[in-house]
Amino acid sequence: MSADEIRLFFEPESVAVVGASRNPEKFGSVVIQNLQNLGYPGKVWAINPRADEILGVKSLPSIRAIEEEVDVVIIAVPAAVVPQVMRDCAQKDVRNVVIISSGFSEAGEEGQKRLEETLKFAHQGGIRILGPNTTGILSPKFRFSTTFVPLTADIKAGPVAFIAQTGMFAGVLLHHIITAEHFGISKVAGLGNKSDTDEADILEYLYEDEDTRVVMIYMEGVKDGRRFLNVARKYTCAKPLVLLKGGRTPAGAKAAFSHTGSLAGQYSLMETLVKQARIIPAHDVQEMMDFAKALAYQPLPRGPRVGIASMSGGAAVMASDAITEAGLALAPLDSRHISYLQTLLPEWAVATHPIDLEPLMETVGGNEGYRIGLETLLGDPSVDMCLLVMGVGLFREAEGNAVTMLAPLLRKRDKPVVVSLIGPKKPCELLTAQLEEMKVPTYPMVTRAAKSLAAMSQYAELKLGCGD
Amino acid sequence: MSADEIRLFFEPESVAVVGASRNPEKFGSVVIQNLQNLGYPGKVWAINPRADEILGVKSLPSIRAIEEEVDVVIIAVPAAVVPQVMRDCAQKDVRNVVIISSGFSEAGEEGQKRLEETLKFAHQGGIRILGPNTTGILSPKFRFSTTFVPLTADIKAGPVAFIAQTGMFAGVLLHHIITAEHFGISKVAGLGNKSDTDEADILEYLYEDEDTRVVMIYMEGVKDGRRFLNVARKYTCAKPLVLLKGGRTPAGAKAAFSHTGSLAGQYSLMETLVKQARIIPAHDVQEMMDFAKALAYQPLPRGPRVGIASMSGGAAVMASDAITEAGLALAPLDSRHISYLQTLLPEWAVATHPIDLEPLMETVGGNEGYRIGLETLLGDPSVDMCLLVMGVGLFREAEGNAVTMLAPLLRKRDKPVVVSLIGPKKPCELLTAQLEEMKVPTYPMVTRAAKSLAAMSQYAELKLGCGD
Repeated sequence: MSADEIRLFFEPESVAVVGASRNPEKFGSVVIQNLQNLGYPGKVWAINPRADEILGVKSLPSIRAIEEEVDVVIIAVPAAVVPQVMRDCAQKDVRNVVIISSGFSEAGEEGQKRLEETLKFAHQGGIRILGPNTTGILSPKFRFSTTFVPLTADIKAGPVAFIAQTGMFAGVLLHHIITAEHFGISKVAGLGNKSDTDEADILEYLYEDEDTRVVMIYMEGVKDGRRFLNVARKYTCAKPLVLLKGGRTPAGAKAAFSHTGSLAGQYSLMETLVKQARIIPAHDVQEMMDFAKALAYQPLPRGPRVGIASMSGGAAVMASDAITEAGLALAPLDSRHISYLQTLLPEWAVATHPIDLEPLMETVGGNEGYRIGLETLLGDPSVDMCLLVMGVGLFREAEGNAVTMLAPLLRKRDKPVVVSLIGPKKPCELLTAQLEEMKVPTYPMVTRAAKSLAAMSQYAELKLGCGD
Repeated sequence: MSADEIRLFFEPESVAVVGASRNPEKFGSVVIQNLQNLGYPGKVWAINPRADEILGVKSLPSIRAIEEEVDVVIIAVPAAVVPQVMRDCAQKDVRNVVIISSGFSEAGEEGQKRLEETLKFAHQGGIRILGPNTTGILSPKFRFSTTFVPLTADIKAGPVAFIAQTGMFAGVLLHHIITAEHFGISKVAGLGNKSDTDEADILEYLYEDEDTRVVMIYMEGVKDGRRFLNVARKYTCAKPLVLLKGGRTPAGAKAAFSHTGSLAGQYSLMETLVKQARIIPAHDVQEMMDFAKALAYQPLPRGPRVGIASMSGGAAVMASDAITEAGLALAPLDSRHISYLQTLLPEWAVATHPIDLEPLMETVGGNEGYRIGLETLLGDPSVDMCLLVMGVGLFREAEGNAVTMLAPLLRKRDKPVVVSLIGPKKPCELLTAQLEEMKVPTYPMVTRAAKSLAAMSQYAELKLGCGD
């Protein structure tokens, strides 16, 4: 029921923008520009009493003047006018409204009064509200967005959803994701002040959404802990949930109260929810994305034992430290595999685990070294997860087709493989794109790769509890 | 004395490459190519009995055939031949030799025998050895390098030195630094097996080196803890030292023993050294570079209190969490500054610290918002360090000349300023380059910015102990 109500926010066939503007800098213009840039295929109306047409879109004086059904209304007018607009929406029988405008619960007594009036009309009309004070929705597959952050790049659709209790930050993070990350977005929901729709509502929809494999949440406070727990427990038995909690410290909690009115003292409640709802916690936005891409693309590991093959002995040491500090263990590699590696090495080198590929590469070349290393780890039953530490610029040949060499092994893999990669910027960016195209999460730091493996191992273990 | 001996490794006027090769893939060719690519202005000889000339460089059959003085000899021949070459070096009265070749202490009994023979000739000749098993030296200001990692990009000279007990990894990391980081390198020393020259020797030279402001060390084990402590204690009273220890965990220590023969159990010794020698520890390579650039470019803070101005309320929450978790505190901003900010805000917004710049930007624009935020923090005596959280892509104007707006303030600053920056990739990379050109360390994650401020605060506090 809730999932169906929420679905319309992400998959509307028609939309009206209240506060549509001719000034290209105004939110009421950017929203329409974004719909046009994304190629939104549904109907669009501009609502502005002082225009007949805005950006080529027909403009009407009010919501009530629209003669057809409207799935979603986006409100970008000053807060004082919003209750009136909501009354129009109720009269027009609109079911889903996104309120971009600021100046409600975060703006003292007067703002609170405005919010109550807005909610009153919403309840009368059976309207679901997203916001106020939000960037709202991004739904790449449906080429739909309500955000006022200018979207110019093409949005890659992918398996990761993002629910954010912060508007501006979600906007810039989204820009980062679509220009610098490869994992692709299924749905984004900026919740703003959460006057109605909250994380639990969105999770219920995402539970059913076949395009979403992992959800990331940035959350400062929870309104209804019991409901969130119930929804999240159901969700995490199907798909992983990575949570970044804002307000973990006294200073952060105080800032969160200013930002979204989230109450201090909620962190202990959140910690309980995290445990009971099988949530993977992250400590910053980078970690949240690191974990999400590892979980989105890969089979879950059967255990916590990591096999490591590294292009340098020093990096093998760092990788061993990193997996241990992440709570994982070095796999006890089969002695027959070690003996086989020994036959390939120059006479001065000794085969061990973690596998130092450097002497091997002196014999067989860079790419073949990586291939033999990965083949050994994938073939050893003691290895639950593989960590391949790669470098660019050591062996000239390694700069070429490392991924082509690894592809046959990667296609057949039945356990997670992550790569840590360092070297010159451009070749590293290219190799990262190629590896992630093969669904191999790639990180510049071995610590980030190790923590991402640990997140996978943690989720695999937590999920075992779903039987009860 | 030791510093003068070591100086020649970094500032030689002539160099011979033993094992010079016509095959462009061989280390003995890459070393000469690198000298040519860097524009090394000194004399170069190739040593190869089967050539008259290699890459346009005169080739001689042995070191002894050179008629002039040779400051540095680079050895890139198979390990078995190295003792013989070292004897030639001793006879020629060479004082500094870099041994690239592998196959010594890391290669069993035979390797150990070779090493002892090599060292015997070195001692007879009073020769300082760097290596074996090392990438050796990079000295951008003197356009000199002994590394076998192909150097094609221009090497930016800068204030950060790097001492590494790992060859291959130092090579790829160097590639990363010269293509992706802005801080610039003063000197790099790859130590390899540390048969003679170790961290303490290099530190003694860097203590005197006016081009070095910060040193980063990757170390798996220490040979002479007492000497390292003495040298490092003297060094850190002048300049900061950031240390990444490899082998912090049992698995890492075991891998370090395979890699460089470093003994397990040294970590507790290292922890003692870190404390007594006022060393800033780092947990991965990224953190090591993050701390180094913060320390290299900025005045030290007078205390641990951070002022925060953020382009979004959510990011202000994350920044508050990050500084608290890094052991720092939010500065108690002067109420007059808060009151002044309040006069600039839209009526619905409330001024607080951390400063949420978003409402201010709605009134004054993006760049002016950042300027007012930074001006407020710099002008408040309770603020020891400033953290500016920036985003690109929110306000179109903010993409332009944020740095031009901030430059007059940054030039006058008497306390550290770091920036956390997120948004679309290319504009972020451009803004990062502009900010770091102004010596403002810039990080994509607020956690990294906060930890870097904490490293500065920690060093400032440790340095107070230098009076005794």
